Amino acid sequence: MGRVTSRRRASHFSASDVTERPETLVVEEPLEIRVNGRPITVTMRTPGSDFELAQGFLLTEGVITDRADVATVRYCRGAEQDGMNTYNTLDVTLRSGVEMPDVDVTRNFYTTSSCGVCGKASLEAIWLASRHSPGDDPSSVSAKTLTELPARLRSAQKVFASTGGLHGAALFSADGTMLAVREDIGRHNAVDKVIGWAVEADRIPLAGSVLLVSGRASFELTQKSVMAGIPVLAAVSAPSSLAVDLATQSGLTLVAFLRGDSMNVYSRTDRIS
Amino acid sequence: MGRVTSRRRASHFSASDVTERPETLVVEEPLEIRVNGRPITVTMRTPGSDFELAQGFLLTEGVITDRADVATVRYCRGAEQDGMNTYNTLDVTLRSGVEMPDVDVTRNFYTTSSCGVCGKASLEAIWLASRHSPGDDPSSVSAKTLTELPARLRSAQKVFASTGGLHGAALFSADGTMLAVREDIGRHNAVDKVIGWAVEADRIPLAGSVLLVSGRASFELTQKSVMAGIPVLAAVSAPSSLAVDLATQSGLTLVAFLRGDSMNVYSRTDRIS
Repeated sequence: MGRVTSRRRASHFSASDVTERPETLVVEEPLEIRVNGRPITVTMRTPGSDFELAQGFLLTEGVITDRADVATVRYCRGAEQDGMNTYNTLDVTLRSGVEMPDVDVTRNFYTTSSCGVCGKASLEAIWLASRHSPGDDPSSVSAKTLTELPARLRSAQKVFASTGGLHGAALFSADGTMLAVREDIGRHNAVDKVIGWAVEADRIPLAGSVLLVSGRASFELTQKSVMAGIPVLAAVSAPSSLAVDLATQSGLTLVAFLRGDSMNVYSRTDRIS
Repeated sequence: MGRVTSRRRASHFSASDVTERPETLVVEEPLEIRVNGRPITVTMRTPGSDFELAQGFLLTEGVITDRADVATVRYCRGAEQDGMNTYNTLDVTLRSGVEMPDVDVTRNFYTTSSCGVCGKASLEAIWLASRHSPGDDPSSVSAKTLTELPARLRSAQKVFASTGGLHGAALFSADGTMLAVREDIGRHNAVDKVIGWAVEADRIPLAGSVLLVSGRASFELTQKSVMAGIPVLAAVSAPSSLAVDLATQSGLTLVAFLRGDSMNVYSRTDRIS
């Protein structure tokens, strides 16, 4: 994991003086994801768990349904720089019979912006597109268990706390067992990585699970949860209007402002005991 | 600006009880940007300053160079839902002679991920692509002026403080005069909006200016600063490795961890007096 952080010199200005010192920064590098050899997207990510990132991305974009749809994942040769593989390009080969993503220009834009909605009609389209909709998931989680999760995510994130620049995402079972935790400079990447972990572990759909994110609950993160069949999304910070609307329509329990011993629940409150 | 926030009911769980109450949320809606009628990108944004957002996006993606390249900007008719214009689709008509953005699939992906780099070679390509590179900008700003800026951004953001979900970006002149401040659920959108303000005000390149962002300094925000000819980018939180590398190569002064009376300067420290 030597590529997760990197050192750069900085001039530190304080009220009294200026000192030169090395600073530890979070690494940000582009990852090009190809499917069957064709470039699909480029995301700015923190290196590490790249195979999970790619598979989580393809699952939450509806390209694959589960692990069986993926034949191979590998870093591309021929992506060298100064004779070294940059490990910034990878290719996912789909199982024979799995449809390639659309190449239609508009669809591309929709895909890469991780969006796909322009109002209510399209929200319904997204809902239909999920083969793992969480609406029928009967699991429940106690409010007490939920309030304990942020501290456990922070504790798991301690290694990189010095950089101050990483978003965290963690999957828990409904009884509070931590299943996976991943970090990235991009919020959506951290979520794709934990969902990609579940793809590799053959745990899709993620019934009976709770996804905790260290920041806000956007439409995009809510959509990713729905696509993976996660019944409970919990965010430390604020939700957006469209996140609440999608959660309500999809039967996802959306928890936000999960801080101390309090939280707000915006949809499917019946899952919180 | 009624569409910037919206109310949703939430169940508030505290240690002792559960209460139902309305919550004010930041609005997130998709904006489809078309150029000469063709869809170019969809971004999830907070409504408001959409024309600025579109023009700032097109400038920082290298499609336009300044205001003269834009003939008209308007919301699309025919984007109605239930007979109402959603104001979520707009079309920018370019001045005759301005090249359309590439329709090549790879280029699209690169554009929409607001990236375009895969290593050092491409970093140089980005640097060359900017017609407003800040490297030669002779302006300087005092450390004292810089330390006063975050409080002024926060003060300008107070209106929406209740939602807890908005990123802020503000442009200042080198003497600390606030030129423009914009907010959005997306960090990159807030920056595109203030740069779009400068496009409309015919102030591109933004020589002698300071861009302050409320969060971290990513590669993407650094790239947008370089494309607009901004000589100083200041962030309240951490920078990424690639942001520092691009700033160093482009002659941009990158300030981060701007808190209280201290800050780190990662490149072109000579501009800080």
